[in-house]
Amino acid sequence: MRTQVAIIGGGPAGLLLSHLLHLQGIDSVVLESRDRGYVERRQRAGMLEQGTTDVLRESGAGERLDREGLVHHGLELRFGGAGHRIPLTDLSGRTVTVYAQTEIVKDLVAKRLEDGGDVRFETEVVGLDASAPSVTFRDSGGTHTLECDYIAGCDGFHGVSRPAVPGLRTFSREYPFAWLGILADVPPSTEELIYANHDRGFALHSLRSPEVSRLYLQVSPDEDIADWSDARIWDELAVRFATDDGWKLHEGPITDKSITPMRSFVAEPMRHDRLFLAGDAAHIVPPTGAKGLNLAVSDVIVLARALSERYATGSDTLLDAYSSTCLRRVWRAEHFSYWMTTLLHVDPAADDFALRLQRSHLDYVASSEAAKTSLAENYTGLPIG
Amino acid sequence: MRTQVAIIGGGPAGLLLSHLLHLQGIDSVVLESRDRGYVERRQRAGMLEQGTTDVLRESGAGERLDREGLVHHGLELRFGGAGHRIPLTDLSGRTVTVYAQTEIVKDLVAKRLEDGGDVRFETEVVGLDASAPSVTFRDSGGTHTLECDYIAGCDGFHGVSRPAVPGLRTFSREYPFAWLGILADVPPSTEELIYANHDRGFALHSLRSPEVSRLYLQVSPDEDIADWSDARIWDELAVRFATDDGWKLHEGPITDKSITPMRSFVAEPMRHDRLFLAGDAAHIVPPTGAKGLNLAVSDVIVLARALSERYATGSDTLLDAYSSTCLRRVWRAEHFSYWMTTLLHVDPAADDFALRLQRSHLDYVASSEAAKTSLAENYTGLPIG
Repeated sequence: MRTQVAIIGGGPAGLLLSHLLHLQGIDSVVLESRDRGYVERRQRAGMLEQGTTDVLRESGAGERLDREGLVHHGLELRFGGAGHRIPLTDLSGRTVTVYAQTEIVKDLVAKRLEDGGDVRFETEVVGLDASAPSVTFRDSGGTHTLECDYIAGCDGFHGVSRPAVPGLRTFSREYPFAWLGILADVPPSTEELIYANHDRGFALHSLRSPEVSRLYLQVSPDEDIADWSDARIWDELAVRFATDDGWKLHEGPITDKSITPMRSFVAEPMRHDRLFLAGDAAHIVPPTGAKGLNLAVSDVIVLARALSERYATGSDTLLDAYSSTCLRRVWRAEHFSYWMTTLLHVDPAADDFALRLQRSHLDYVASSEAAKTSLAENYTGLPIG
Repeated sequence: MRTQVAIIGGGPAGLLLSHLLHLQGIDSVVLESRDRGYVERRQRAGMLEQGTTDVLRESGAGERLDREGLVHHGLELRFGGAGHRIPLTDLSGRTVTVYAQTEIVKDLVAKRLEDGGDVRFETEVVGLDASAPSVTFRDSGGTHTLECDYIAGCDGFHGVSRPAVPGLRTFSREYPFAWLGILADVPPSTEELIYANHDRGFALHSLRSPEVSRLYLQVSPDEDIADWSDARIWDELAVRFATDDGWKLHEGPITDKSITPMRSFVAEPMRHDRLFLAGDAAHIVPPTGAKGLNLAVSDVIVLARALSERYATGSDTLLDAYSSTCLRRVWRAEHFSYWMTTLLHVDPAADDFALRLQRSHLDYVASSEAAKTSLAENYTGLPIG
């Protein structure tokens, strides 16, 4: 069995890579350990940078995104009982779009299959060779070896690709809090996202659609979700979002409830020989800045360009630059995500000095055109490559 | 003995307050514990925000400042072997001026005496009453009580004023480093200040005049200055300022050498009854952002306005707002000073993740117009009051 690029992982990174390579006439096989239903259902991020919507649209995978995605031109910082709008588009010239990762996966799976792509669900990768490139995997039909020119490791934080890179340096940070997230069948109480800082902790009002709200609460990392009844969640959200002018949070049936730990992680380099890591396989950000999915997409854009150049011209220049090209943007996103996380969350270990600094920082971000622009340009996404 | 405003402390804050009050026809007495020679010699800050030069000039105390002050329009961030200019004036519309605090003190002492002001050196304040306002002090002639309407506590971090405020809340932070500072009789190797981040620690190239350089090295807070020969200082400076294109540091005789610990400190509120704290008596910043003197000046501007309004109209409105008006700007400066300190210094406890974030942050500040503008507007000074 042979292909040009073996792609481990059928999440948005792997599927988009396969799709972009196909447009350049490059064959690939996507190996995904879960079944199709699972990958099309799993709830993940939902805020797309303009660079992410651009690549989906320009590559012909943006038809439903254009129809159903909700384009946003701003967000709200809320603290001290008042809201402060950050006009993202006025400040950065770019927009962001609410469109769930799970919808992108559905669109890309459909597109790949429609284009005759080879996407294999329920395959377990049991080995890979980055030098005489091949991937060995098991499926219901037995164990197979897929020979290839290159391997793309798009299999997430817990995947097999990263451990196959020898001599990796890793960088990480744990946070003393987690997010309790819910999906609720109730129209959002806001048109734009609300990032709230409150003495009791951070809260985020996001959305999935005009009918579905997505809300988050900062909780302790060892919080037991069994302690959070629906009523308690709504009460706590109402407290953290409360404003002096009586803003109202609409409640509705909660359809999904989970706690996600927060972590920063980077592995360097993102390449070993013929193996290239992309997305969560190489880096994790805390979700505050909405950067995880977008960073996976930008890795894949860089990798698709580099492989296209290699196949078109024989030049390894872009492939050789892949890791350093990606890591510049990765570290920028890591810093921004860390910055936005610490700006908005309450660190249980913070002393009074740190809390006063945080409040002054929030006041500044809400009042300075320069500081707002800095938030906006990072949030909507800095240039790729 | 009676005056309208008793001013404890004859540093730049107390002297400027006395001068500004005089211009409004308000009498004051300045009580300074040291002798005139001492206050006119002590080496302190030397970078003035535009708001500071404006008030000196507009109040008629800027004649020598206009002649000898060096107006700067930018500064340099240096890291990774390369310099990155921040064009402060292009970005903020404002300038900063190099003019040593000790020169301001000389100018203001001369001005007060010329105007018939009552500035008493070598007086030791032994008591004060903030409610039936009076200050008791000792001088060579014995112990005296100065009755007054208001007391201004401009006597610095170790003064007697702050302890006279009951129920103060204090906020503070120690840093795991100090500054070893030198004055050297050698023309500066740069026209604008250089703020350098290096693996071995922060370094700052500042200046006092076209003939005198002022340089600083990040050292451990428990560093013994006896371990730093002149040769070792120059060698270490050369390493930390080194660039890939061979920039050259000029050496010369070192005339002053000292180690200063770094601290952040704020006391709230800045008022108790008829006693008003200003400058270092109420707050300390690490020197990285050059904010200490400028913050003292802005406190005094706010206090002079408030007292002038009180005497002119009988209204307490501005006096009642004094503490909160000042504290907004104080916390902004505290945050900026903390930000610039952590951006540029090497925290000995930083893990690899923190060091990578710091480098990404530096790259961002050096490359983003928004981030540069944010630095510039804070460095040149945000609006007063």
